[in-house]
Amino acid sequence: MMKSRAAVAFGPNEPLKIVEIDVEEPKENEVRVKILYTSVCHTDAFTLSGDDPEGVFPAVLGHEGGGVVESVGKNVTTVKPGDHVIPLYTAECGKCEFCLSGKTNLCSAVRETQGKGLMPDGTTRFSYKGEPIYHYMGTSTFSEYTVVNDINLVKVDENAPLDKIALLGCGVTTGLGAVKNTAKVEEGAVAAVFGLGAIGLAAIQGLKKANAKRIIAIDINPSKWELAKKMGATDFVNSKEYDRPIQEVIVEMTNGGVDYSFECIGNVDVMRSALESCHKGWGESIILGVAGAGKEIQTRPFQLVTGRVWRGSAFGGVKGRTELPGMVLDFMNGEIDLDSFITHNLEFKDINEAFDLLHKGESIRTILSY
Amino acid sequence: MMKSRAAVAFGPNEPLKIVEIDVEEPKENEVRVKILYTSVCHTDAFTLSGDDPEGVFPAVLGHEGGGVVESVGKNVTTVKPGDHVIPLYTAECGKCEFCLSGKTNLCSAVRETQGKGLMPDGTTRFSYKGEPIYHYMGTSTFSEYTVVNDINLVKVDENAPLDKIALLGCGVTTGLGAVKNTAKVEEGAVAAVFGLGAIGLAAIQGLKKANAKRIIAIDINPSKWELAKKMGATDFVNSKEYDRPIQEVIVEMTNGGVDYSFECIGNVDVMRSALESCHKGWGESIILGVAGAGKEIQTRPFQLVTGRVWRGSAFGGVKGRTELPGMVLDFMNGEIDLDSFITHNLEFKDINEAFDLLHKGESIRTILSY
Repeated sequence: MMKSRAAVAFGPNEPLKIVEIDVEEPKENEVRVKILYTSVCHTDAFTLSGDDPEGVFPAVLGHEGGGVVESVGKNVTTVKPGDHVIPLYTAECGKCEFCLSGKTNLCSAVRETQGKGLMPDGTTRFSYKGEPIYHYMGTSTFSEYTVVNDINLVKVDENAPLDKIALLGCGVTTGLGAVKNTAKVEEGAVAAVFGLGAIGLAAIQGLKKANAKRIIAIDINPSKWELAKKMGATDFVNSKEYDRPIQEVIVEMTNGGVDYSFECIGNVDVMRSALESCHKGWGESIILGVAGAGKEIQTRPFQLVTGRVWRGSAFGGVKGRTELPGMVLDFMNGEIDLDSFITHNLEFKDINEAFDLLHKGESIRTILSY
Repeated sequence: MMKSRAAVAFGPNEPLKIVEIDVEEPKENEVRVKILYTSVCHTDAFTLSGDDPEGVFPAVLGHEGGGVVESVGKNVTTVKPGDHVIPLYTAECGKCEFCLSGKTNLCSAVRETQGKGLMPDGTTRFSYKGEPIYHYMGTSTFSEYTVVNDINLVKVDENAPLDKIALLGCGVTTGLGAVKNTAKVEEGAVAAVFGLGAIGLAAIQGLKKANAKRIIAIDINPSKWELAKKMGATDFVNSKEYDRPIQEVIVEMTNGGVDYSFECIGNVDVMRSALESCHKGWGESIILGVAGAGKEIQTRPFQLVTGRVWRGSAFGGVKGRTELPGMVLDFMNGEIDLDSFITHNLEFKDINEAFDLLHKGESIRTILSY
């Protein structure tokens, strides 16, 4: 058992409270990590809002972070104390039906307990004044010390700056991966990206890497365009400026629709627009955003019968333990830009300010230092 | 101008009337075909019902047929009088953006006029007592003589029996093609087929050809099972026998869901069931049925974010002029079974009886002889 500073979500829609919690030793196949940097993502805010049907409280949220292994439990062979690591909310056991399928990154090994905020043995490693505190997404990076499964962790190059590569733990990887792994965008493609948060900007960066010939950035906040342009966007559309469905505008400006569209918001109406912006015969729309509980997508089946494809992915279809080390190297070689996503730097104690910046749309990512 | 026996749809929801119409000479790039055999498909019934928003009256319906070229207009080089042909409602010009894409069979060359029941010059070749009669789907096989564009016609082996291969003009090709071209089903796959009409049965046949290891046939009419079994189905589900969503039943019996599902009815609720019957991570659902006007499909985006794919195709993604001659040979070599689809044979004058049989679910296909 050790003491750890943590920002605990005691209940929905309340600010996080910085308190000292107790963190147990890692059990078999578990690893205790000293988190050095974390950032705040919309999914944390979504769960904190109380709208996430899987959300449980009190919990240690946080799923985008970087740190160093502090200690390991029995049978852990993949990391050792001192290793630099990134926690992975999408586990990769390498052995389940999903991992072996070669078709998906959705590992099933710890899915059930992870969704309930528990470790695989059905208990938690966090407590406050003797009462258990739940885990979150298998990562809980809003604690100076966290315990994760070894399959929820990837070792990365220790020369890489953890305050930057922490971003590969969620949003950036989701956007880059969706272009490469889910859509498999080819050179010369025409694409539209709906929503210019971290995921959307990363999708734009991925499209530029894939040599897409036209990258249309769509948002209702034009202040995001400068960054979108820096990432590689070629066209900018403010959907607020039109009094007709934005899909009509996109189809018109592309003379038939885009080859690929990406929904990076989590709004079911935008998901429909993204699909219907696609070119008849072959356009594919990829859903990356997480919609509110009970929300449903809708379209006329004719859209699909005439050749459009509707798909989605989580964590960009990326297998974290297999692919993240290479992405870290790509960053070190200048092939992935992470710096541009970091609009703010704060101390961990100011985490609620980071949530505020996100809510107001003023930040892309705020890096919090412990 | 020549006289021709035709079954004319004078208005929605009225029986067809057998009358003698006038059929003009084929104009440039047009071909006049003597239809020898035609069958009735649900799409004809759908348009006749008045529910098809594109339906215009009076019209000569019919789109599944086989015949012999009677005469050709100027600049027709692909067929000559006497050639055996199958009319194609999905044209293939080989030159438009769609044909050249290599990604779709949806040719755009004559789309606009075809959808309005007109030839490309904006007029019709049919008239009755001096009043124009509209074309239908670019084929109008419910007339002893019809005029079609050369790109809406494929020449086939003259040794093939036209009363059988007429079926390749729609339903059978749609089912076979969806498995091969749209889903690209691989050996050992687990699949579900919703709806056991001609399209569904053909999908089952296609799945068997693809060496799917399990083929689940779903219908509310168990009398269809014998034929489904003959085509290759391994499991049979009557959705009426369950008081819970049929997707739950399918997911349970397949221990996680199917690799591929095919909706062959045109019911938006079944389309949802078909998607949600798919395996997390990789299951793909293909919509083949045509839904009623204004109907929409719906699901939680989570279904797609967790790896399911929703797609569809028309005419099974098959390029008629390129692929149909080979399918005719496959039939002649015994690799495609067409005979089992033909449950009834009638004379053309009894066409309304063929519609009745279809409505009552008593026929799969009725072949009408002129």
